[in-house]
Amino acid sequence: MATARIPPRFEALLEKRAVAHVATIGPRGEPQSSPVWFGWDGEMLAFSHTKARQKYRNLIADPHVAVSIADPDSPETYLEIRGTVTIEDDPQRHYIDEMSLRYTGRPFPPRVGEERVIVRVRPTHVTFQG
Amino acid sequence: MATARIPPRFEALLEKRAVAHVATIGPRGEPQSSPVWFGWDGEMLAFSHTKARQKYRNLIADPHVAVSIADPDSPETYLEIRGTVTIEDDPQRHYIDEMSLRYTGRPFPPRVGEERVIVRVRPTHVTFQG
Repeated sequence: MATARIPPRFEALLEKRAVAHVATIGPRGEPQSSPVWFGWDGEMLAFSHTKARQKYRNLIADPHVAVSIADPDSPETYLEIRGTVTIEDDPQRHYIDEMSLRYTGRPFPPRVGEERVIVRVRPTHVTFQG
Repeated sequence: MATARIPPRFEALLEKRAVAHVATIGPRGEPQSSPVWFGWDGEMLAFSHTKARQKYRNLIADPHVAVSIADPDSPETYLEIRGTVTIEDDPQRHYIDEMSLRYTGRPFPPRVGEERVIVRVRPTHVTFQG
């Protein structure tokens, strides 16, 4: 599927330190959802994740995701990006540190044995309100 | 499946005017996600929705949802409620007005011809962080 374009008026929302909620498909075909810190490079939305959690296993089994972001400054405005993910190992934990600095101003606390990946979402469909 | 209990320390989050992101399964089995205003009565999470949007059709076809709520005051704290929904017609639009008053202090602007329902989520599984 072709890469979907983000409506220009939502580009500012993608630059905010908003929380993105990522929906995946669980092992019984059921939806699962959790919030992440995210980055946007103008084309792909990305977030860090550990290999230890269910969402990682969901993404390996089915790369379809939906990511919704509510505008913290405008309660009826939101953007939803649907797409498929690619996953890259992040042994040096660069991306979680980058996100932690962006959201909290501090590097992410080290967690012994935690394996990190970078999940990149290529938008194939976009919905929005506001 | 039995109704899941919410850990007591998350009850305060359910009383906040936080945004809940609702994940559903779309017509091709793909996840979809969008934010809603929600209420919590101690047992069920509820939100208002229109009959005109895809999420309503998703819920009719598959009542499984996941609802994730990030704590606006604590960036690494969130609660995810998974469950199944029941849907009730709301011809007088009581619930969207109740939610609009709770979140904005004003009734919801009337929208001609818009049919509203109340969607109630019975929690069957709860995940959380923080």
